[in-house]
Amino acid sequence: MGLGIEDIAKARERIQKLVRKTPLLMSTQLNNWLGHDIYFKAENFQKIGAFKARGACNTLAWLQENGEFPKHIVANSSGNHAQAVAYAASTMGIPASIFMPAYSSTVKIQATRAYGAEVILSETRDITDHKVREAAAEKGTYWIPPYNHEHVICGQGTSAFEVFQDLDGVDAIFAPCGGGGLLSGTLLASRGLSPKTQVIGVEPLQANDAAESLRSGSIQRLSGVPDTLADGAMTMAVGDITFEYLKQLDGFHEITEEQMIYWTQWLSHLLKCRVEPTSAMVMDGVCKWLKGAKSRKKVVVILSGGNVDQQTTLKIWAKDHLQQLPQEMR
Amino acid sequence: MGLGIEDIAKARERIQKLVRKTPLLMSTQLNNWLGHDIYFKAENFQKIGAFKARGACNTLAWLQENGEFPKHIVANSSGNHAQAVAYAASTMGIPASIFMPAYSSTVKIQATRAYGAEVILSETRDITDHKVREAAAEKGTYWIPPYNHEHVICGQGTSAFEVFQDLDGVDAIFAPCGGGGLLSGTLLASRGLSPKTQVIGVEPLQANDAAESLRSGSIQRLSGVPDTLADGAMTMAVGDITFEYLKQLDGFHEITEEQMIYWTQWLSHLLKCRVEPTSAMVMDGVCKWLKGAKSRKKVVVILSGGNVDQQTTLKIWAKDHLQQLPQEMR
Repeated sequence: MGLGIEDIAKARERIQKLVRKTPLLMSTQLNNWLGHDIYFKAENFQKIGAFKARGACNTLAWLQENGEFPKHIVANSSGNHAQAVAYAASTMGIPASIFMPAYSSTVKIQATRAYGAEVILSETRDITDHKVREAAAEKGTYWIPPYNHEHVICGQGTSAFEVFQDLDGVDAIFAPCGGGGLLSGTLLASRGLSPKTQVIGVEPLQANDAAESLRSGSIQRLSGVPDTLADGAMTMAVGDITFEYLKQLDGFHEITEEQMIYWTQWLSHLLKCRVEPTSAMVMDGVCKWLKGAKSRKKVVVILSGGNVDQQTTLKIWAKDHLQQLPQEMR
Repeated sequence: MGLGIEDIAKARERIQKLVRKTPLLMSTQLNNWLGHDIYFKAENFQKIGAFKARGACNTLAWLQENGEFPKHIVANSSGNHAQAVAYAASTMGIPASIFMPAYSSTVKIQATRAYGAEVILSETRDITDHKVREAAAEKGTYWIPPYNHEHVICGQGTSAFEVFQDLDGVDAIFAPCGGGGLLSGTLLASRGLSPKTQVIGVEPLQANDAAESLRSGSIQRLSGVPDTLADGAMTMAVGDITFEYLKQLDGFHEITEEQMIYWTQWLSHLLKCRVEPTSAMVMDGVCKWLKGAKSRKKVVVILSGGNVDQQTTLKIWAKDHLQQLPQEMR
């Protein structure tokens, strides 16, 4: 099926009571420094601390609407999707089993358990993926994949949908790229509600399977667990559904770890938010895109999440980047 | 003059366009763990990242209202008050000189300068205090002190004023104690709008001049720069005006550095906010107060600010406290 804006609108209606309408944040100081207006759609204040709650809730609510309510939910994820499915399942009273790689951040494992889900840890992502496939074969079990799924995509698109209900004249909207679910949904919402807005993806250079896929025209897989602080963008490959949407993006940027850390510090400081490196890296893409802009631009950044564990926090703050002002990044 | 609720109401009206109405945050997970309802008045989202913007703006707006608008503003502070005065002065177009001890956090010094104020650094707090006194003697110069001043107190009280406009049935409201300005204003607002609410102060054990003053019945000074991460509570002594209000508090708690760090991590994680240790330590006072509570309580915590530099961030996150759930702190 070809998804359209009406599918995002229906998803928005479906999940309205299950998720939060997240705020749009601004920093006057950042806008003065950059000379443009940047709005941050704060999905770190979403239920479970990330946009992923939207896709999981939409999928379960859609199943319920269509009389296909499962007896058991399973999912595989290294983090935010795990919590999202655990949250959605607990809200709707269905038992959930979540398969996670052991390298997942402890706060994400802990939170998934706190929502009442059973957590099964495996050594690698591949074993995790194998186990969830086995579990999903059981009768009455429904597997909610992290991104390559139409109802997940439509759920994620409700974030941009809310943005365009509140803001017009947006020149560009940026989101990070993991498996491509958030970007696919963002593209659908943008093309439907604000067709002049450019939709731009951002990915860590250290985990640039999507950029490589876009360059080569076919889906490329990472060869091993990538060495990046952006744990939300560590997916091994985009999906066949999301790839079709990613091809329609107006731009795509690859970000170094140094730039990612720089912006994680600065967005934490300016917005007074806990921000995942996966979310903050997007700002470097914004700066690249703004270079050479002749007029004041209105830009939206989807701050995808705020779940950061202690080890990652120490890595982010090891060096002081707050000494170098963002105006020097123009 | 005896201050009353009408003074807080007037302050609220006076500064309405200059400061933000900050949101009330909640964490469902924290409330489940503690078995009570905790609301956080998020002054970290206030202009300059702390409640101090309220007092500085109220003082300048009051001077303007009374035809006593100065030509030059001076202030002495190790941090948030410095930024607050710089912000208020720039908003109203008056030049400002801020005297800060050199140990002040770099992000606070930098932000004070970014608001256009001249910053004069001195080696110790005492030299800073001496220099500001000299500068204030110049004609046409007005000195906004950090806490021991009626219009500063009334400005700070507008935070609790907003709380009681939005919430009723609050059993207790908690705030940190530095010089006592925030607590004095909070007491005035609470007694006026919600007389049954207990007003409770919290101070680091390592900088417990207020607790010592309350025990002895007279103002006690710290003997040297205190060794605490709560830089907002490092004031050497409370003031004669604020001490009179502090005596009327319904409770007062002293917090260890370990507990302060524990709650800074957990509030950052649960609320997805950048929170100063000075603000987060209050939660330990809340837990102590809740011990033995027989019914579900409604508690408000004033999260005073969110300005934390890189060095302090590293100290906060050196050890992983997120492994121990808050329910074990009950």
